[in-house]
Amino acid sequence: MTELTIALDAMGGDQGPGIVVTALERALSSFTHVHFILVGDEAVLTPLLQRYPKVVASSRVSMQHASQVVAMDDKPSAVLRAKPDSSMRGVLELVHNGTAQGCVSAGNTGALMAMSYLTLKTLPGVLRPALVASLPQQDGGQSLLLDLGANPTCDAETLCQFAVMGSVMAQQVNKQAQPRVALLNMGREDLKGHDVVKHAAQLLKASTHVNYIGFVEGNDLFSSTADVIVCDGFTGNIALKSCEGLAELLYDNLRKSFSGHFFTKLVAKLLFRRHRKSWQWLNPDQYNGASLLGLRGVVMKSHGNASANAYFSAISHAIDEAAADLPSLIHDRIEDALLERVTDQRD
Amino acid sequence: MTELTIALDAMGGDQGPGIVVTALERALSSFTHVHFILVGDEAVLTPLLQRYPKVVASSRVSMQHASQVVAMDDKPSAVLRAKPDSSMRGVLELVHNGTAQGCVSAGNTGALMAMSYLTLKTLPGVLRPALVASLPQQDGGQSLLLDLGANPTCDAETLCQFAVMGSVMAQQVNKQAQPRVALLNMGREDLKGHDVVKHAAQLLKASTHVNYIGFVEGNDLFSSTADVIVCDGFTGNIALKSCEGLAELLYDNLRKSFSGHFFTKLVAKLLFRRHRKSWQWLNPDQYNGASLLGLRGVVMKSHGNASANAYFSAISHAIDEAAADLPSLIHDRIEDALLERVTDQRD
Repeated sequence: MTELTIALDAMGGDQGPGIVVTALERALSSFTHVHFILVGDEAVLTPLLQRYPKVVASSRVSMQHASQVVAMDDKPSAVLRAKPDSSMRGVLELVHNGTAQGCVSAGNTGALMAMSYLTLKTLPGVLRPALVASLPQQDGGQSLLLDLGANPTCDAETLCQFAVMGSVMAQQVNKQAQPRVALLNMGREDLKGHDVVKHAAQLLKASTHVNYIGFVEGNDLFSSTADVIVCDGFTGNIALKSCEGLAELLYDNLRKSFSGHFFTKLVAKLLFRRHRKSWQWLNPDQYNGASLLGLRGVVMKSHGNASANAYFSAISHAIDEAAADLPSLIHDRIEDALLERVTDQRD
Repeated sequence: MTELTIALDAMGGDQGPGIVVTALERALSSFTHVHFILVGDEAVLTPLLQRYPKVVASSRVSMQHASQVVAMDDKPSAVLRAKPDSSMRGVLELVHNGTAQGCVSAGNTGALMAMSYLTLKTLPGVLRPALVASLPQQDGGQSLLLDLGANPTCDAETLCQFAVMGSVMAQQVNKQAQPRVALLNMGREDLKGHDVVKHAAQLLKASTHVNYIGFVEGNDLFSSTADVIVCDGFTGNIALKSCEGLAELLYDNLRKSFSGHFFTKLVAKLLFRRHRKSWQWLNPDQYNGASLLGLRGVVMKSHGNASANAYFSAISHAIDEAAADLPSLIHDRIEDALLERVTDQRD
């Protein structure tokens, strides 16, 4: 297997670098062919690493100092000039100059998107990068939802490119041979929705590069109906966060309803332990990691308050994408799709 | 108390007229000052009513024959001409000619919206009607979300009118003195989102007719942060249906995880019965009923596959709105808001 290097932004995220180093320790034993570069403030990392002798001893870990940290409330537009030596910028530069094949950061999403776009640039022909994440499905599988917020508005051409990029990712990462691609809409009928989504549907119907199955609705996000669900970043962001909000509410009420009597609590605990497996698919940790697709390199965004296990998931997703050389595959397919459009228009 | 009349579309919905008549029977004893007109096919309703002697005997129930039914898959644009004698059209005409102060239908949403718009017309000054529904909140309260799909796209002025209409409804129906109004966006910061939502925020900040608190995100839909949450119909539809999808998935998995061993099933049942109260707020029945705001009359959409209890909820929401004369109150506030805009522009 080819040797890979993944750069980790040790400083981003709400939980501090301890989470990142704990995840790195686990990744070292799980991925024995992968090298890691930990980027962050040495004054913080050096004392911390003393608690991780395996990480320190490993020949597959190197450190790179970065004097600045992108804060969660830093303005994406300002951070590029104001913090030239941030750990976030550091990992992106390592991907840009080819030292690393992918990077992971739990920092400020807006800043990571803006900085990735400027540092790595989009692949030739790609109109806009898209943020994509996996959703658990009713049948136990996974579907991809994109865009999740990189683009507040999108034109029809951009949505079609997201469909192509999502298809490539579903094939390579989720091992789906003929991923079913759908557009997220307010109804399944052709007449439903606004002009952009209707235009995108026409373009996708004509494309041979995407297995387009039609419109799906919000309640299909988890129904195993489609493998790739495409929408603009505004819609995707609100759909995903609405579900997060509902899940929090339900969890909160479940917890409250089991917090009364001692016996009830005990029974509830035993019951949930017994059936933990059935709930495993819902464990948010394993779904942590949103990729930025369409860039000249693999960039993985971990959730800001990810646990070490969740950060480990993001690392393993980054390794999967880097191992498949996802950016090259997307490049090829986007080029083919563009060629098809040009040929169609000539005919 | 003033006597009210509510017209019920007996034929719409997936569950058939039995649901509607059962709900009507319950409404007759709960709302002793309200008259009801049951609109539908006599050939179907007459034999059915034999099973409901209380309904037949009541002096507060009258029947009106309608020979046609709007099907769930009828095209909204075609149904207006193709089915002039539908039960849906019947209830809207009763509101239009002042015989009824409100109506309820569980039929085809698109057809109901189009037909309401054409039969009742919007209130003077109202740009577009909006579909609004209640969402359960973490603190046990309720918030209103609009638009849920009447308008795939909206300009900033329209979103501001939705904010005004939602405020009036929150005051009158949810009894919130100073309802907190927010715009649904992909982030809370001023710079987030697309041009329309940013422009709407500017307009709302300048308005004295709305207690505008800023942007909220998807995960605030249930967080008791705002009493009225405003968005375009595409976004609202997808946010609400995404939550429905997740709720279905969770419920399905909960059921599966408790379907194994006999003992587990028994304990789970006892546990959930004991804690039913904590789950009551989540009961979708009590949230059934989406209002069409901005029209010259009260129109309530019940869910297509609503139970009798859920349909009863929709009836009681329609009665609340009709009793408050919500259309008149919205008319006054929209007029005031328009006057303020004109004065501002002159200054």
